Amino acid sequence: MLSGRAETPTQSTILRLVRDEGPLSRVELGARLGVSRTTVAAEVGRLVELGLAQDAGPAASRGGRRSTMVDLDPGLRFVGIELGATSMRVAVTDGRLGVLARASTPKADIRRGPEPVLAEAIDVTRKLLAEQGVDRPAGVGIGVPGPVDFHGGVPVSPPIMPGWDGYPVRDALSRELGTPVLLDNDVNVMALGEQHTGVARSVDDFLFVKIGTGIGCGIVVQRHLYRGADGCAGDIGHIRIEPGGPVCACGNVGCLEAFFGGAALARDATAAARAGRSSVLADLLAGREALSAEDVGSALGAGDAVALDLVRVGGRRVGSVLASLVSFFNPGLIVIGGGVSRLGHPLLAEIRSVIYRQSLPLATGNLPVVLSELGDDAGVVGAARLISDAVYAAE
Amino acid sequence: MLSGRAETPTQSTILRLVRDEGPLSRVELGARLGVSRTTVAAEVGRLVELGLAQDAGPAASRGGRRSTMVDLDPGLRFVGIELGATSMRVAVTDGRLGVLARASTPKADIRRGPEPVLAEAIDVTRKLLAEQGVDRPAGVGIGVPGPVDFHGGVPVSPPIMPGWDGYPVRDALSRELGTPVLLDNDVNVMALGEQHTGVARSVDDFLFVKIGTGIGCGIVVQRHLYRGADGCAGDIGHIRIEPGGPVCACGNVGCLEAFFGGAALARDATAAARAGRSSVLADLLAGREALSAEDVGSALGAGDAVALDLVRVGGRRVGSVLASLVSFFNPGLIVIGGGVSRLGHPLLAEIRSVIYRQSLPLATGNLPVVLSELGDDAGVVGAARLISDAVYAAE
Repeated sequence: MLSGRAETPTQSTILRLVRDEGPLSRVELGARLGVSRTTVAAEVGRLVELGLAQDAGPAASRGGRRSTMVDLDPGLRFVGIELGATSMRVAVTDGRLGVLARASTPKADIRRGPEPVLAEAIDVTRKLLAEQGVDRPAGVGIGVPGPVDFHGGVPVSPPIMPGWDGYPVRDALSRELGTPVLLDNDVNVMALGEQHTGVARSVDDFLFVKIGTGIGCGIVVQRHLYRGADGCAGDIGHIRIEPGGPVCACGNVGCLEAFFGGAALARDATAAARAGRSSVLADLLAGREALSAEDVGSALGAGDAVALDLVRVGGRRVGSVLASLVSFFNPGLIVIGGGVSRLGHPLLAEIRSVIYRQSLPLATGNLPVVLSELGDDAGVVGAARLISDAVYAAE
Repeated sequence: MLSGRAETPTQSTILRLVRDEGPLSRVELGARLGVSRTTVAAEVGRLVELGLAQDAGPAASRGGRRSTMVDLDPGLRFVGIELGATSMRVAVTDGRLGVLARASTPKADIRRGPEPVLAEAIDVTRKLLAEQGVDRPAGVGIGVPGPVDFHGGVPVSPPIMPGWDGYPVRDALSRELGTPVLLDNDVNVMALGEQHTGVARSVDDFLFVKIGTGIGCGIVVQRHLYRGADGCAGDIGHIRIEPGGPVCACGNVGCLEAFFGGAALARDATAAARAGRSSVLADLLAGREALSAEDVGSALGAGDAVALDLVRVGGRRVGSVLASLVSFFNPGLIVIGGGVSRLGHPLLAEIRSVIYRQSLPLATGNLPVVLSELGDDAGVVGAARLISDAVYAAE
């Protein structure tokens, strides 16, 4: 399978219509686009040559000559890759971004640097494509856990990705995989995923808050990702919430993610276990060097009061930052995702309560604060969406 | 003078081109719009009938038949009104929003309620129009110091505007003045003013921060005002910065504007004068009930250390909130305006220093934080811009 990308605005509109609404007849496409039957035939013909669309049989008869249905090429494939601090996920999707197959590596570490990590990502991707019988996907989207120069396709001074600053991730992947690639922040692609198939489908302005090892936020304004003047919008993990406190990965003190998030939670739970403040946490720590955020989840499930307190205090801190952002941004929806969001209701309840208490009623009257519906798929679906938008759009 | 509004996208494009670039020949308009000479003639003819455009003499000869220049109608007039907590400003502008005349009332009080305040605004507007020989302006824009339902044209639960909640400001003014009216938040119209003729002319994404009696923020995303899901985006005066503190006009405690802004500054300066902490402030208070934010400016000019301290502590608080918003929004520019911004350099220096210290280098590397260039005109020019955009745009 070899495919190109849309070349004209008309091709672009045809692809988006059949992506979002399913197969459409040539007659209907002509009517919707306000162009002649000849133009539709020529543009669809070109899309078939490019491997993006195909004829999908005769349309239901409406009297007169039967029209032909047009659909996305059923062999069209996109790849979404999400690199987390300690995780790597890859998915292969069809043209409508339905996930056909996924793979993840159990122990990843972004700090190994770009070359070994990308080599592994390429390896996992190739295996997955081979299993699916795909020769070459139409494009690959990738999200990484740090600030990205979207136009340059490189990470920029990412605090938790030593060695990645300025590394040409987009171009290196594109060269190896022989297909167009786009690179973005992990949180941005997760926001796109929620917009594509998640809870944010029908919302114009929303925030996707990822609480993973660190904390970040994807911002959608009028259904488009907002990246900011330098591409680092949404970097809320480094908002200073207290004058002192633990040193953050970025080198400052007082940052939100130095107080809460997966890494901080693991640190605080380990300390509580060592200090003998929780027998449940101490039992979990037995024979190991440190606890993880997942262990806090287990302790929570066992009814441990110390674990609950850690989650509540953390939720209050996140809620307080989000309350400020609600006053400023007045979003229509806040989606909470990322690994730590699996702590579930106790965390969500605390975040909600602070937001509703600290923001003006006008901004919170219609503001749902919900957990991500997509879970682990948000990033890979969003990364596939990122590249599919570029493939479907004429430049 | 009686004028309508653009009726077609082509008319809209013609008006915007001659507004932004000055008079253009019909031949050039045809070429720029990709339409025939006949279409240009018909559309310009309609704009002349509507009182929006006029022929402006022959174009310079380029060989062949001379083309005719098209310009905005020189009699086209807009009105911008800005209501502050204690101020009222009105300006009459030409079609390019150059201010032809302005008026202000020395002692206004928004708390008198909508009927007397709007009656006075209408009175001031009518006098100004009469002085300018204008029968009816093409439209009126008005900004008020509180949250607004932009589509409904009414204030919504505005904390410092008792009696205004749900009052049909837009429709009442439109009926009285017999012309289209648009209502927005004062800070939003000030942001539009800065974008039209101020320091933000060439910036896509910026924040306009008004420090007046209260504190608010206008948000511009990709050159468009961002109003949020409920129209109350930018309400940063009610971000909670400390768990306790003075009670705010909104009823909560800990809000930024309960600590700083014109009202808080006047309160703190009066307390300092009464407590004998500053002889300069005490002298200013002699024989009066309370000091104002302007008095703090006078004391600052006289080198008073207590006044300087009030400004510095306040600047630090504003800076800390803005630092969070810089991490979240990554703007290309921050403009500081409103009455209290006249305290000038000591305030600006403190705000800047906190922003640069607390936000990530990537977001502050190219981030100018500057004082408004327009001063008192920002609101009225922006209000005129708001309605002119609607008059020039085909719906």
